[in-house]
Amino acid sequence: MQSKPLILVTNDDGITAPGLRNLISIMDEIGDVVVIAPDSPQSGMGHAITLDSTIYCDLVTNDDRKKQEYRCSGTPADCVKIAVSEILDRKPDLCVSGINHGSNSSINILYSGTMSAAIEAGIEGIPAIGFSLLDYSWNADFEKLRKHIKKIALEVLKKGLPEGVVLNVNFPKLKEGKDFKGIRISRQAKANWKEEFDKRINPQGKEYYWLTGKFKYLDEGEDTDIWALENDYISVVPVQFDLTAHRFINDLKEWKL
Amino acid sequence: MQSKPLILVTNDDGITAPGLRNLISIMDEIGDVVVIAPDSPQSGMGHAITLDSTIYCDLVTNDDRKKQEYRCSGTPADCVKIAVSEILDRKPDLCVSGINHGSNSSINILYSGTMSAAIEAGIEGIPAIGFSLLDYSWNADFEKLRKHIKKIALEVLKKGLPEGVVLNVNFPKLKEGKDFKGIRISRQAKANWKEEFDKRINPQGKEYYWLTGKFKYLDEGEDTDIWALENDYISVVPVQFDLTAHRFINDLKEWKL
Repeated sequence: MQSKPLILVTNDDGITAPGLRNLISIMDEIGDVVVIAPDSPQSGMGHAITLDSTIYCDLVTNDDRKKQEYRCSGTPADCVKIAVSEILDRKPDLCVSGINHGSNSSINILYSGTMSAAIEAGIEGIPAIGFSLLDYSWNADFEKLRKHIKKIALEVLKKGLPEGVVLNVNFPKLKEGKDFKGIRISRQAKANWKEEFDKRINPQGKEYYWLTGKFKYLDEGEDTDIWALENDYISVVPVQFDLTAHRFINDLKEWKL
Repeated sequence: MQSKPLILVTNDDGITAPGLRNLISIMDEIGDVVVIAPDSPQSGMGHAITLDSTIYCDLVTNDDRKKQEYRCSGTPADCVKIAVSEILDRKPDLCVSGINHGSNSSINILYSGTMSAAIEAGIEGIPAIGFSLLDYSWNADFEKLRKHIKKIALEVLKKGLPEGVVLNVNFPKLKEGKDFKGIRISRQAKANWKEEFDKRINPQGKEYYWLTGKFKYLDEGEDTDIWALENDYISVVPVQFDLTAHRFINDLKEWKL
């Protein structure tokens, strides 16, 4: 590559989240970085886009970084759309999203704002990676992730990704003194959430709910992202956004519809 | 089936949308119907769930239907979660979502609240179908869809669906006097949106955007949902929520990560 690669950085925890700030500082070592991130947390936003209301996109500066960044009132998918359409002069060479504070492995990918940004970039034909750390804490330790994130990003910049594929990278939370055992290329584990709605009464006497739940692992085998993460491996899942269940097309053609 | 099937009905256009009211009236002919739908339009919500705020779920009655229904402040995916966890005594035999006012074919499925509800039901192990009509009008004519929706729903009730698969059914908008040519089992067409953000200045002098765009069809062949719809066929795409790009796993294992 002659000039420095152009890298779009976004997330779903908001522009001040330590996960994003760490990801920016890693990408600053690799290329020309443009940051466009939500102005507030967008966890659980899935692939939402803003159709019925306005989107603001303000130039701001954050922490010690001298460069201007864009703080956007939209969803993570909006951020990528507005970056590509309005802000960047050319298509970026890479889009990275995260580092998410919390897991986007298994079924969580469907609810993930972090991964929706990566997938949106993939739809636009941009090589894209979502990074997540299995630690919800604002003060999570991202230090041990740096060299791995840099290596994965450089490899994607070098090789590109097949059309219609983006990467979902999850890092396990390490116990004190431990290190990652390595990287496992994995598949999305079968799982769901067993919801446990917390029903309460508001001060006006009206019932309302908080969504809570327990993660139910419904898979087995050593090739899933959950297995990798539970065994201190970094999980890398190649993800596609063609949702067609090709395996069922021929059977369905036999139905009398 | 001995007793009447239990059918969960939801949508993303809100509980008063004619598309939902039509779907309810069709399902009332087939089984015991429970309606849990958003209290306001949720188009473009993708697979969002409500993590950071409260969810209300009120009993209401609508139009001439005598039965009580649930009007929910959450997203379509929330509606399914709360139905399964809090409202229904047993797992429903079928979940139908829609009839959406507008297309959920091709890449639109990723942004679709209608399909997120169907997929959420699929994750919970419930046979599920999303129905959409390519007509954004509130006064769209749903009459010609009735017999097809009934037939598809009855067939799914009879046969079930494979684990991890739901159906995405889209109806073309017919020209006056025309009828559907039949049903085509299709795959999700490759396409994206070329965004065209409409930049404006608010009364306080601050820039803001409206998201608009043009649909870009990037596919060819006669086996896509877009082809079917453009040729007056009803499109049925089997959809999965394992997003793993299995085709790329072996190549990725060769990378030096």
